[in-house]
Amino acid sequence: MEPLNNVVVVLVSTTHPGNIGASARAMKTMGLRRLRLVEPSRFPSAVATERATGADDVLNDAEILGSLDEALADTAWAVGTSARGRRLDWPLLDPAACAKTILNRAARGRPVALVFGREQSGLTNNELDKCQALVRIPTVPDYSSLNLAAAVQLLAYELQKAVLAAESIANTSRRELLATPAELEGFYGHLEKSLTTIGYYDAGKPRLLLRRLRRLFARAELERSELKILRGILAAAEKTAKQNLDQGSR
Amino acid sequence: MEPLNNVVVVLVSTTHPGNIGASARAMKTMGLRRLRLVEPSRFPSAVATERATGADDVLNDAEILGSLDEALADTAWAVGTSARGRRLDWPLLDPAACAKTILNRAARGRPVALVFGREQSGLTNNELDKCQALVRIPTVPDYSSLNLAAAVQLLAYELQKAVLAAESIANTSRRELLATPAELEGFYGHLEKSLTTIGYYDAGKPRLLLRRLRRLFARAELERSELKILRGILAAAEKTAKQNLDQGSR
Repeated sequence: MEPLNNVVVVLVSTTHPGNIGASARAMKTMGLRRLRLVEPSRFPSAVATERATGADDVLNDAEILGSLDEALADTAWAVGTSARGRRLDWPLLDPAACAKTILNRAARGRPVALVFGREQSGLTNNELDKCQALVRIPTVPDYSSLNLAAAVQLLAYELQKAVLAAESIANTSRRELLATPAELEGFYGHLEKSLTTIGYYDAGKPRLLLRRLRRLFARAELERSELKILRGILAAAEKTAKQNLDQGSR
Repeated sequence: MEPLNNVVVVLVSTTHPGNIGASARAMKTMGLRRLRLVEPSRFPSAVATERATGADDVLNDAEILGSLDEALADTAWAVGTSARGRRLDWPLLDPAACAKTILNRAARGRPVALVFGREQSGLTNNELDKCQALVRIPTVPDYSSLNLAAAVQLLAYELQKAVLAAESIANTSRRELLATPAELEGFYGHLEKSLTTIGYYDAGKPRLLLRRLRRLFARAELERSELKILRGILAAAEKTAKQNLDQGSR
């Protein structure tokens, strides 16, 4: 899958080489291959290679860098992992949403980074500042001590799930069945006009009505044939209303 | 969370004690605490305790058993992990579906087991026969070498996600906001009447129209306030149509 080739896993100041090896293995099982190590305590290391168990190609290709800035220099977007939702003002994603966002951004061509901090203390605030979003893996409140490679595994897994979901949508006929954004806009325009005609909507006092209807139909993910039915209903309602208006003005 | 107290993780013939410790840690981060070890190669072990990093309570409480039969003796249901979808005739779940099923069954009160096999070779066919379903974690096809504790972590994570989703549905105001089945039926009845009034629907030639509209609105999971808007639109369309009919019959 191509977008995953643009996903870079960055491990910052990892203490235990075993975690680097286990992270490489975790990445490879889920189709990730680009590993960047910022100031690892010990690397290369026989312990890392042993724990990588067949993902030594990922380790061999790993880039070793002197700072997070260098690791992110060519990236278009970076998301930092955080055990705590430390910054209320920062976009905080759950792993599944994070995976979708990464895939979307990676599909644009430039590298996208998933940044993991130290085993004990995570990423510093200064390092989090260099990321455009945060991702938090849900754990029970009283024991959030996720192993580093386990965190890599979970986010890599969500990425692989997102890839499979995207492929499934691409392959299924439903994608072709779905109304396009332009068709949806045509429908919303028609809806506004019809609601005005039947006297339910007043453009002078718009309230939230149209936004609420958009939200409702967006949740339903309308198919093209359903759009045709809905527009048929609108046309029928308009027709009877207009006949009425015509007759009324006679 | 209560249902998780009925979930038992069974590790069969684990070779490396480090994997037992890492599995205990993985379990505890996601709220699982009941570990059963079938013929572990080495346990207890300092390596296991070290890798458990604070989940040593899970290790201390672990039950050691001589066979999978003993480990499953009190369980109501068991799902076995399999790297390959080996048995075409066996129910094969993905991790998210597996987690939902486990939670549902665990909520009934008797223990439910999640069974993991050997590091190298997984579960034997004979062992899989003792499980009522299989779960497969998606990996890339050319490297499916998931570490044992990583597999435990992923399934425990999906269980935690399922718990959070269940709590969220239970707690959120959205549940209260959602239209009840009776309210939905009232709406569908209104819809049929309105579509007849505006001449879009003929009960004599029903086609699939109403069923398709039901399917569309079911996908949207209508809130009560949205139902009110939709019924308001139907009422307005009926009103203009009836005025028309009244005038036409004059």
